[in-house]
Amino acid sequence: MTADNQQERLDPRYVCGFVDGEGCFHVSINKVPKMSVGWQVLPEFRVVQHERDESVLKELQKFFGAGKIVTNHGTRKELRIRKLNELRDVVSFFKKYKLQTQKKKNLEIFANILELMEHKKHLTIEGLTEIATLCWSMNRKIKPHFLESSETICQKSF
Amino acid sequence: MTADNQQERLDPRYVCGFVDGEGCFHVSINKVPKMSVGWQVLPEFRVVQHERDESVLKELQKFFGAGKIVTNHGTRKELRIRKLNELRDVVSFFKKYKLQTQKKKNLEIFANILELMEHKKHLTIEGLTEIATLCWSMNRKIKPHFLESSETICQKSF
Repeated sequence: MTADNQQERLDPRYVCGFVDGEGCFHVSINKVPKMSVGWQVLPEFRVVQHERDESVLKELQKFFGAGKIVTNHGTRKELRIRKLNELRDVVSFFKKYKLQTQKKKNLEIFANILELMEHKKHLTIEGLTEIATLCWSMNRKIKPHFLESSETICQKSF
Repeated sequence: MTADNQQERLDPRYVCGFVDGEGCFHVSINKVPKMSVGWQVLPEFRVVQHERDESVLKELQKFFGAGKIVTNHGTRKELRIRKLNELRDVVSFFKKYKLQTQKKKNLEIFANILELMEHKKHLTIEGLTEIATLCWSMNRKIKPHFLESSETICQKSF
């Protein structure tokens, strides 16, 4: 193997800076009638790039040892990590290598949601309401549908 | 000064990662009739963020010891570095801390343009044509007006 072929792993501080610019911690709550509580909580970490920079997504995938690279939209690709145990590792990484932007607040909320899920709170309406309220605080522009649903409205009247 | 007040400088590898995602090397060639050659070459390095993350731009400004923070558009702010000697330092930094995205190609072209300017090539129509062709190779979508101008067309017929 020549020196040129010896691919080095990305430096963790580079990864921190890149993700601070380009990464996203996101949680959606989707209506899934076949699930016992009727809703599914889907946390994910993603980094989106134009397809010309897919190689950086592959480097990040190697770095985190996790995730899938899929088409995001048109010529955009995304690295997406969804498994709970892998997301826990991502959160641990960013607790060590600190984000500098407001994204660090979203990381804290994201970490809280993962913890609630580990305690199976997403399997009850009360827990889902707590998670949905946290989601809403990550992105005030989009109120989760769950918070407008009949389940929540019934629950509020308990 | 308490520990909380002791602001640490950003780590250079964090800066490299952040700029790889969010930074931009840009050169415009503007018609300025009062200049002897009629055109001005304006190279700049910029990082744009939502105003909520202006603090990161300030950290980058401190890190590079250069640049101004101005309004980019609406709620977006930008750190902008335009002075040639400061841009030289920025280029030197990114030759040491390597970019991973296709932006590294733009950095190379940007460095070439700075070198041509140091040799005063931007003060002749021939040099401007060379610079404009390099600009165009940075962004194939936008052909510099200079390359369509009468000066260039005359020059081509030499």
